[in-house]
Formats: sequence, C-alpha cells, structure tokens
Amino acid sequence: MEVNNKYVAIKSNINGAPQESHFEIKVENLSLILEPDSKEVIIKNLFVSIDPYQLNRMKSESSSQAAISYASAITPGEAIDTYGVGRVLVSHQPEFKKDDLVAGLLTWGEYTVVKEGSLLNKLDPLGFPLSNHVGVFGFSGLAAYGGFFEVCKPKPGDKVFVSAASGSIGNLVGQYAKLLRCYVVGSAGSQEKVKLLKETLGFDDAFNYKEETDLKSALKRCFPQGIDVYFDNVGGKMLEAAVANMNLFGRVAICGVISEYTNASTRAAPEMLDIVYKRITIQGFLAADFMKVYADFLSKTVEYLQDGKLKAIEDVSDGVESIPSAFIGLFNGDNIGKKIVKVADE
Amino acid sequence: MEVNNKYVAIKSNINGAPQESHFEIKVENLSLILEPDSKEVIIKNLFVSIDPYQLNRMKSESSSQAAISYASAITPGEAIDTYGVGRVLVSHQPEFKKDDLVAGLLTWGEYTVVKEGSLLNKLDPLGFPLSNHVGVFGFSGLAAYGGFFEVCKPKPGDKVFVSAASGSIGNLVGQYAKLLRCYVVGSAGSQEKVKLLKETLGFDDAFNYKEETDLKSALKRCFPQGIDVYFDNVGGKMLEAAVANMNLFGRVAICGVISEYTNASTRAAPEMLDIVYKRITIQGFLAADFMKVYADFLSKTVEYLQDGKLKAIEDVSDGVESIPSAFIGLFNGDNIGKKIVKVADE
Repeated sequence: MEVNNKYVAIKSNINGAPQESHFEIKVENLSLILEPDSKEVIIKNLFVSIDPYQLNRMKSESSSQAAISYASAITPGEAIDTYGVGRVLVSHQPEFKKDDLVAGLLTWGEYTVVKEGSLLNKLDPLGFPLSNHVGVFGFSGLAAYGGFFEVCKPKPGDKVFVSAASGSIGNLVGQYAKLLRCYVVGSAGSQEKVKLLKETLGFDDAFNYKEETDLKSALKRCFPQGIDVYFDNVGGKMLEAAVANMNLFGRVAICGVISEYTNASTRAAPEMLDIVYKRITIQGFLAADFMKVYADFLSKTVEYLQDGKLKAIEDVSDGVESIPSAFIGLFNGDNIGKKIVKVADE
Repeated sequence: MEVNNKYVAIKSNINGAPQESHFEIKVENLSLILEPDSKEVIIKNLFVSIDPYQLNRMKSESSSQAAISYASAITPGEAIDTYGVGRVLVSHQPEFKKDDLVAGLLTWGEYTVVKEGSLLNKLDPLGFPLSNHVGVFGFSGLAAYGGFFEVCKPKPGDKVFVSAASGSIGNLVGQYAKLLRCYVVGSAGSQEKVKLLKETLGFDDAFNYKEETDLKSALKRCFPQGIDVYFDNVGGKMLEAAVANMNLFGRVAICGVISEYTNASTRAAPEMLDIVYKRITIQGFLAADFMKVYADFLSKTVEYLQDGKLKAIEDVSDGVESIPSAFIGLFNGDNIGKKIVKVADE
C-alpha cells in the first residue's frame, strides 16, 4: 500500500531573509509496508512546529550547524525535520502501536518515517488540544521554562525584560515570570501584540520597539530601577540596550537572536565595561539542555493551564502548503504566539 | 609636625589614551598630627599598584563609575586611590600601631590619610617581598584566582586561553591553569613576552597577536580541539575570535577589556549563534567579589610560591614621579607582569 506524501523542501540554501521562491512542495510515493526487520515507525503528521532556528539550518554555512544534531544542515530537496505531533500508521517497534499518538521529530510534511533512535515518544494529551503539545508542552515551553528558571535564576520581585515577548517562547517566559511575582516588561513589534501582553497576559508593561527611536531610553523608561533578568530572543541593538540598563549581577539568557538570523551585520556589541563592572552573566542555551527538569516543567505547566493562570497562545495555519509562508512570517513578525501548522485532522 | 606629600593627579578627565601631559605631580603640606577624636591613620606609602581600570575612573563618564565604590570617578587635581602597601606613621585606631605594615586603599603618592571604614589591614609579609603583597597576594592575584576557579570553573585537561597573558593577572591565570593540568595558551604583544610565557611560566603555547593577520586562525592553530575556557583581559577582536573557537559549554570570564578602555569603537561583537548553540557563558567579575575565597587563595598561593611552582612576575618602577609613565605604559604593553611603583624604601 502506498500514499502520496506531500512535504516542504528548500530549493537551495537560504542566506538572507527567506522567501516563497526558496521553497517547493514536493510529492513522493511512500510505501506503508515496512521491511520485516525494519525498526522504523511510519507516522501520519498532525501538527508540526514552525521555528526560526530552522533558518540557520538552511544556510550554506552556520556555526550552529555543527553544534548539535538537530541543528545540522538541511539538504536542499530533502524533507525537513521538525518537532511535531502525529499518529502511528505502521510500526515494527513494540512500544508503538497503530493509532498511538506520538510526539517527536517529524517532518514539514504529511508523513514521517521515523528511524530507530530518533526522538519519538507516546503522547498522553492530558486533556489538552494536540497543538498544545507542539507549543506550550513542546520545546518552546521547555525553552521558556528552562531558560527562565535554570539560566536566569530569577527571584520574586526581580525586574524581568523579555524581547519578542509575544512570540512562541517570550510570551511564556513573561507569564512564568509573572507567576513568580516578578515585574515583567515585554517588547514586541505591533500595538496589537503590546495590547495582548498587557491586557491578556498580565505583563506589567510592554512597548512596540518599532515606535522607539532609542531602545536604551525605552528600557530606562520601563525599568527606572534597572533590569535584573533579560530573556533575549532577538539580539542586536536590543541586547545592547538591555545590557546598558542592567543591574549589578544581572543575568542575560540568550534563547535566540532572530534579528541576526537574516542579517549577520546586526550583531550585538554590548558595552563590555557594563559586563565587567556590573558582573553581568550572558548565557546561551538550548531547550534540549533542560530534559532534566522536564517532569517538573510538565507538572507545573499542566497545573497553571488547568487553573487558568497560564495561557497557551497559538497561531495555527492549515496544510503543508502553508508551511513556507508560516515560516517566512516568523521573520516578519506575522505570528502571535506559537506558530504551528496543522497538517491533518485528528 | 608636617611633611611634604608628593602625589599624582589628573589635570582633567582623560577620554582616550593617557599621556604624560594629562598628569601632574602635586605637593601638599601634610600634618602628621591627628585631631584627638580622629579615627584616621596616616600611612607612609611603600609600594602602590598601577592598574588599567583606573583609566575608566579618569573618564568624563563611564558606566563603570557608578557600579562599585572603588571604580568611582576620579576628580581632577585630587589624590588617586589605589591598592598598596605601607607603614603606619600615626594612628588613633587601636588596631593599628606606629610602624605596623599595612595593605589597603592608599594613594598614588607618598603618604595616605586613611579614613575610618576604608580598606586597611595589618600585613604579615609571610616572608615574601612587600611588593608581592601588591601583586600576587593583592587584587591582581585574587582576580586571577577567583576569576579562573570561580568563574571559569575549570577541570583538569581543559583547553584554556588567556589574553594579555604576560600581564599582571593573565600570567597568574596561566600558571594556575597549568597547576590544574590544563592545556594553556597565552597571547601577548611581543616575542619577549611570548618567550617568557613558554620558557619561564610553562605555558603550552603562546603567540604574538601583533604578528597575526587573523586571530581566529591563530586560535584555531593553537587549539585544534577548541577552547573550553577563555580568560579575557582585552575584549575586542580577540573576544570574537575566542568565541568562534570555543567548544560546547565553553566559559568566558571577562576580567577586563583593555583594548576598549582607550577606544570604545573596538567593542566586541561576538557571534551570538555560537553563544546560543554552543551554550557559551560570558561572565564579568571583579576581584572584590572573591573575598569569600581569599583564605583559600592565600594559603594555596603561598604554598605554590614557596615550592617554586608559581612565579611572581613584577615590573617595578621607582618613585612617585614614575607613576604617570608606569600607568601610560600599561596601554602600550610596556609592562611585563604586575606593574608596581616603589614609592619609598622599607
């Protein structure tokens, strides 16, 4: 038995801002019969994650590509792996049965043939929508939780700044910080996003960075007592401005630097005198580093969501064909919350 | 009874590289009779420390000046405080008697009137030359020890890079790292310094950065297996090159950024993708942060010096008049090891 598997590929490496013309939708015949000794599992993809870091994998070269397996280079023409949720169609692995829900490394496509040893886990939806397991319970949630609690080491009352605060990770960081009773300010790229942060997510303040002529002054205005923790999703001038406004022993967690992904010339040059004299720590991290706190993250996040103390903000598009524009939109600030593509009905 | 107290002052703020014309030698009459209710102590200065950070205090403004009391702005025309060793001439404080040796916050001058509450401790020379108590046992030594062990968290076998490696702090970091059985490479600005590092101090390798056209390639050559720890004394392009060559979970301790003190346009813009994907930590620190490990630092350093495992490299000039040129020389790379001025014979 065979199916047509529609999937997204890049036509060639992408070294600037991604555009529709960089992508193609390919179709392959996929056999649903596995060899008798195969340890593969065939998954029907349901929801897949759309993340900015994929752009670094699409470049001709990036220092990120050698650092960790899931950041490895994407080959033009081939399927692109991504975190997602799906349902088992065929399995020769005893732990996975037909129709099981799973979460793991799928593809930007309709089906995934998951090899033995690749990330795949049975999924208990815990009463939540499946899309939540790509977003708030997926690596975006873990990055927010681990990056904030493990890297930023926040205390109640800390003054916390989050950039790209309406994005997939930023909005959760701000909400976790509020739950810890921090003073939280977010930056975002539109008045609609600013309104979401202040009115729906309970941020103490927020500003539209596109309307600010001087980011240092904007942060000075929002943080008259200085910044203790900066959760950085953007890099560039915002990182410089945050460092200038940080307090003694301030902590900066570098989750991503989206302003630098499409334009390497926007690299941040923070004032090193501030870093020395204010004893600032700047630390990069990846969500995968925090598997040791996953159980803690999951139980707390489930409880917060059930109690209505945390909101899962999602931006869902439909169909494999929507993946390129969903991805491109990340770099234009089109998404509000976690960008997800629904590939098929449950 | 009065003495003439000769001391160094700046004529006005210094906002670029320091020059002789920025300084003046002043003379004041100093009474050696304290008021009956005074809690002051009058010290005859013997050895005083010459440190690059003083330049940030001499600027019209610097973010460093507000961060910590000893980095506060220096007022033109007034005496400049510095760490040093001296002898008590007059004291109304019971813990200090005439002729006691002391170490603490003195001045770039012949005498210091130390106010109550200012840093001053009785000094036991422990059989070492007094100058050692300004250098290897002073804040330079503590910065090297604390910055390396507490901030860099090194393990035996780690690949350690030290810039300004023949300087007051760098040479000690390299020696501590060798004692921990790390692989240690230093950069310096002359063949003479490179020779000192390799032949006298036991560095595994060293290079003259002035002879390298590409610092990234130089570090790649010296660290084919990458850098685990970078102890940064210079900032700028060297920091960028080190980050590019760092291993996963690499640690960068920012002790100083001398290349940026005289020219703010040389600010480092390290590749943030490296910081994220390699999960690099960059941390600023000050020696004063490590008072909690002072006893440990002192006992180990005494033992290493007594056993000949550690060498105290000093560059001593004579007389208050030599202070301006000694200080200016720091920014030209004139000093080898800790720069100290001997103000008076013991």
